[in-house]
Order: sequence, then C-alpha cells, then structure tokens
Amino acid sequence: MSELKFSDWMAQQQSRAETALERALPMSSIAPERLHEAMRYTTLGGGKRVRPLLVYAAGKLAGASAPTLDVAACALECIHVYSLVHDDMPCMDDDALRRGKPTVHIQYDEATALLTGDALQTQAFDLLSAPGLFADPIRQLRALHTLARAAGSRGMAGGQAIDLASVGKQLTREELEYMHLHKTGALIRAAVLLGALAGELDDDALERLDHYAKCIGLLFQVVDDILDAVADTATLGKTAGKDAANNKPTYVSILGLSESKDLAAELANEAVASLAGFGEAARRLHELAHYIVSRQF
Amino acid sequence: MSELKFSDWMAQQQSRAETALERALPMSSIAPERLHEAMRYTTLGGGKRVRPLLVYAAGKLAGASAPTLDVAACALECIHVYSLVHDDMPCMDDDALRRGKPTVHIQYDEATALLTGDALQTQAFDLLSAPGLFADPIRQLRALHTLARAAGSRGMAGGQAIDLASVGKQLTREELEYMHLHKTGALIRAAVLLGALAGELDDDALERLDHYAKCIGLLFQVVDDILDAVADTATLGKTAGKDAANNKPTYVSILGLSESKDLAAELANEAVASLAGFGEAARRLHELAHYIVSRQF
Repeated sequence: MSELKFSDWMAQQQSRAETALERALPMSSIAPERLHEAMRYTTLGGGKRVRPLLVYAAGKLAGASAPTLDVAACALECIHVYSLVHDDMPCMDDDALRRGKPTVHIQYDEATALLTGDALQTQAFDLLSAPGLFADPIRQLRALHTLARAAGSRGMAGGQAIDLASVGKQLTREELEYMHLHKTGALIRAAVLLGALAGELDDDALERLDHYAKCIGLLFQVVDDILDAVADTATLGKTAGKDAANNKPTYVSILGLSESKDLAAELANEAVASLAGFGEAARRLHELAHYIVSRQF
Repeated sequence: MSELKFSDWMAQQQSRAETALERALPMSSIAPERLHEAMRYTTLGGGKRVRPLLVYAAGKLAGASAPTLDVAACALECIHVYSLVHDDMPCMDDDALRRGKPTVHIQYDEATALLTGDALQTQAFDLLSAPGLFADPIRQLRALHTLARAAGSRGMAGGQAIDLASVGKQLTREELEYMHLHKTGALIRAAVLLGALAGELDDDALERLDHYAKCIGLLFQVVDDILDAVADTATLGKTAGKDAANNKPTYVSILGLSESKDLAAELANEAVASLAGFGEAARRLHELAHYIVSRQF
C-alpha cells in the first residue's frame, strides 16, 4: 500500500471517496426524489476531492479506522459542495459552470439549488453524528464541533460574507489572508483535524498537524488565484478570469504573479516543515503539499 | 414554579429563550459584523418560540439541567429561523414580511439572506456539539443525530422540496400529511426529543413523547393553515392568504374549514392521550397542546 506512487495513491483515494459518497448520500429513488437527485448530481462524479484526500492522509497517520475516515471524508465534502452550490447561485457569484457541468440552479432551478445546498450541509452533520462512528464519543463530539466551527459564521460562511463585502474594494495582503483563512482555509484545516481526531493522536501532534493544515489552506487559495489568472476555462472546469472580471481582490492582483508563486512555494515549505516529527508516516501529507503547489504551474 | 398559570409560564419561558439566544449568537461586534448582525436581526426579538417551549417542557419532565435545555432550545430555534430566512427568499416564497418585520433579503440583500440562513444552520450544530453540554456524550450524539435527521433531506428540507413541487397540484389528504410531517412536523418532534434526551428518560418514555410530538407537529400545521385562511396580515405578522394566492394545497383547501377545525381538536386530544403515563410532570406539554389548538380560533 504505502509503496504506491503518489499519483496512483491519489487516484485510488479519489475513487474511494467517490464510492463512499455514493453510499453516504440518499438514493435518488427515495422521496423527495428530485432533491436527492440534485444532491447526487452536484456531489458525485467530479472534483479533486482535496478535503477527503487530507482526511485520508491525516487519518492514516493517526491510525484511524477506514470506515470512520470514509464518513468523515464524506461529511467534509458535503460541506464543501454545499458551499459551491450556494456560491454559484445568481445572488452570489452567478456561475453557470462547475466541474465542467451546469451548476445546480441551471440544471434544475434556483429553489432546488437553495434546498440542495441546505440539505447537503445537514447531511454532513447527519453523517458525522452517526451512533458509534468513532470509538470514543468524546472525540466524535470534538470532530462535530470542529466541523461546525469551520463551516459557520466564524469560519467558511463568514469568509464568504467577507468576500462578498470586498468586491470592488482594495484589500491589504493581511485582509486578503484573513478572508481566505476563513473562506477556504477553515474547511481544509477541519479536514486534517477530523482525520487526526478519528485516530489517537495527542494534543501536541494535533497542533502540529493544525499548523500544516493552516499553511495548506492558504496555499490552496494562493494557487487558486494563480490558476484563475493564468488558466483557461477548459483546464479549470469552471469559468476562468471571473475574479478579475468581478473586480475581486486576489493574491495575484495584490502581490503580482511572480511574488504569488514565491508565496506558494514558501507556504508549501512551511507546511512540510510542520510534519518533521512524524517521519515516514506523514508521507502522503508531505506529497499533498507538493501536489497542491505544483498543480498547474 | 409549577404553580404558574400557563400564560405566565409561557411568557417566562419565551423570555428565557430570548436571553439564551442573545447569548448563543455571535455578537454583531465580531467579524463578519454584517452577517452576525443579520443573524441576530432575524432571530432575536420575535416569534412564539414554540420549539424552545417544547424543549423546555419536555426537558423539565425528563429532569434535564436548565443550561443544557437552553442550548438545545437555541439549536432548534436556529434551524427553524434558518428555514424561514431561506423560505422567504425570492426563489422560494418571495415574502417581504416575517414576524412583522422586513425579511432578511429585504432588510439586507439576497446574498446576505442566503449566508444568514446557512450560518444559522451551522450555528445550531455548533451549539449542540459543545464539549460537555450533555452529561452523557452518547446521548449528546443522539441529540445531534436526531436534529440532523429532522432538518435534512428526509426531514424539514425534504418537506420544503415536496412543498415546492406541490404548487398548483391537487394533493390528497395523505400526500398533504406526508408533506407536513416532514416540513413542520420533523422539527417539532426533534424539539420534544432533544428536551427528553437531555434528561434521563428511557426508550419507552421517549417513544410516548415522540407520539405526542408527532401529533403536535401535524396539529401545528393544521392550525397554521386555518389561520392563513381566516386571519388578516396584521394578526398573523406575516403576509396572510399567501397559500391560497400561490395555489398551495392546505388542510383548509382539501378538508374545508370546519373539518380542519375538527381535525385539529382530534390531534390535540391524541397528543394529550400520549401523556397519560406521565401524570402532573407533563402538565406543560398538556397545556402546550391546548395552546396550539386554540391559538386564534
């Protein structure tokens, strides 16, 4: 297992996440059929599954059981996908394309997109609160609380609100970082922490992983901004150049392209440095940092 | 305490819920300020607090601690209010008035309404997953799972989807009941169950309370339909007659006004009958059934 090349490991874990999501979401034959169909439409069959990959990699390091990690990975992905569905709606980013497919409000309608996002958020907490999911109920409650904190008004949803308020404004690098630490970073951190909580790491190890996760979260957004500035729509699987067109501040608009790339490399190094004490067990987390920084450039 | 007249008890518990919500929601001085302000705007200072009242009444019967019940009551109310905020949006019911105040998308904007509902849902799970909230972590997980099931695609959000699909259609009484058992009933049931789970009732007692709660949930909707048909906007605090105007099926449109009133009385009796084994301890639940049935007619 551990001898797999990174790209093979990643493909294997992505397929594992897909199978887990297939099982975790209500079948579209169950009423209300259209809602369940829309939840499956937008969640299955696409995405890089970065959050599940982080859950799996951190969980393996922590010695967590595979079925527990599958459910934690699905909970993270449900929160992520709900945020995308709502973010794409006309009153937010008004995007017609996501992961190469029509967005939910285009494929279905706005009301269905609203309810699909709502129900996916609930699904995450439904999954993660299943009786007996974690061997230790206190760690399970801690995982639920971590996820809720990461997703809510002082996490991801709060980051979205700050993003919304920043359109057309000049932000400093500090303000931009604050926004992204919430909007994208909080959920990335939660992915690593949930994987770790599902196992048996102590608080010191959790803290070191949290620092890794914080760097990865920012890194992910810096790379996203670089990609948005340089990639075309086909490569990206979503409408490219939207941020500039929407006059949204990005790392590229504030630091320039070259300095943004330097920052990405620096964050990846800092992330990897936090893993030093874990040795070979942290190999996949190490590789994920390099993967994120080198995705397309 | 237990000698208070029902109306005084209710006023006292409503004020208790208001104070608890004041504390449970992030202050509007905390970033993102506008989002937190909107969350407080729509949650505080109004509403009959039916779900908190049910949490308090069931929790008292179950011997639960007051601080635990306060948090459970707030979690229920956050889910309820989130559903109202999203339900009022232009792509759903497009309502401008709620509890006598402009709805969130009118007072703020649509994107803020979307995020406010999203963040209120997360807030509910954040509150209910707080470390040490229940003496027994396994019962706390059960409460979280109960809430998630009640709110999600096979509960409240699913009921909304069925409601949406039913506009302009003729439903049978069975189909209407199915819709309401999900849309309104699921959360009402969860309120009673969360109060009960916070204490120490056994599964048999929980089941009897669940039957009470199921009757109350339907009763609540039957009464709502009657009120929507007969009341004016000022009494209702929201736009009256909308269901008929939107060609939405209601108990009144299917059964007629007089038979709807008979059904309400019958459901209240059945609810009260489920409480028989609890004696005087169930007094407030008993009174709540009567209160709901006699609200306005």
